[in-house]
Amino acid sequence: MKVVLASNNAHKLDEIRAAIQGSGLEIISLQEAGIHDELPETTGTIPGNAMQKATYVFEKYGIACLADDSGLLVEALSGRPGVDSAHYSGSRDAEANIRKVLAELHGHSNRNAAFITVLAFKSAESELIFEGRVLGKICEIPSGVNGFGYDPIFMPTGYDRTFALMPAEEKVSMSHRTRAIEKFLEHYNQHGLR
Amino acid sequence: MKVVLASNNAHKLDEIRAAIQGSGLEIISLQEAGIHDELPETTGTIPGNAMQKATYVFEKYGIACLADDSGLLVEALSGRPGVDSAHYSGSRDAEANIRKVLAELHGHSNRNAAFITVLAFKSAESELIFEGRVLGKICEIPSGVNGFGYDPIFMPTGYDRTFALMPAEEKVSMSHRTRAIEKFLEHYNQHGLR
Repeated sequence: MKVVLASNNAHKLDEIRAAIQGSGLEIISLQEAGIHDELPETTGTIPGNAMQKATYVFEKYGIACLADDSGLLVEALSGRPGVDSAHYSGSRDAEANIRKVLAELHGHSNRNAAFITVLAFKSAESELIFEGRVLGKICEIPSGVNGFGYDPIFMPTGYDRTFALMPAEEKVSMSHRTRAIEKFLEHYNQHGLR
Repeated sequence: MKVVLASNNAHKLDEIRAAIQGSGLEIISLQEAGIHDELPETTGTIPGNAMQKATYVFEKYGIACLADDSGLLVEALSGRPGVDSAHYSGSRDAEANIRKVLAELHGHSNRNAAFITVLAFKSAESELIFEGRVLGKICEIPSGVNGFGYDPIFMPTGYDRTFALMPAEEKVSMSHRTRAIEKFLEHYNQHGLR
């Protein structure tokens, strides 16, 4: 089965393609499918946006589509930045986004947070949704230069360093995105896709 | 933890409350929470609408919320009626909706379909999503009077009668809604909720 992967983030694309390759699914990028649309992300929630993107591509181009959306949920901020994680400060500047979260959390003792990724698959017969998440805490001071986004301030439960201080392989081994991909592959191996 | 259940369908409410009661979660209805809003369902996808409703209640009323959305996906109809299942004919009349699906499927030999339910949970730290589905076929002629919606034309794989011909307990034992609830409870038992 040919599946187009609707992610415009090269990081995510590499990670998902690497995990899925060898599964027997033929994965192509938006570019390879000749799709240059800006995909809609207007639902206001993470799973909503993931399925919105997959549905848009399937309905417009008639090809099965796997799309993802991710975000950081901070408990003391009522789940913000959530669906707005990528542009929380008003721009896509990761440092500005981190500064805003740290400023809003200033003085809060509750630093609980969760990173989530939702993968949505849409085809003629399927509308599947898989979620991965990692619980952790928000550090007071950013540290590390690996990864991207909020990685410098996110310390997963059971670890004493942020995602951005981990080598890529270590983060990938436990990441929210990896967990979502594992759920997708588990479903595929058990039930196939159609 | 107190959770408001954002379902306006008495059928679903009973089913979900029955399954969740005894879990230690305190489940209250929208009415018991004093919430009389019409909940938004404008995302165009099933998981999107489930999470949109849960997020709306959490953000407006500050109470953790579990919401659901369901639909029938017919392969030969490119996944329709899908998110529009409840009002596919333009009204909420189940018979009219069934007639429209049967008319559109007329002459198609591919009768594959799936019933799906998505449960979405939104709280300060969590944005969880659980999906249950049942594969089956669309019959040429409705049969049975039990259940609701498309039950008279949906025959689950491995059975020789429609959902509407089954006693309530038999349908509940295998339904898409039950499977989604089971996934939610499995998560709750393993990880708790916060």
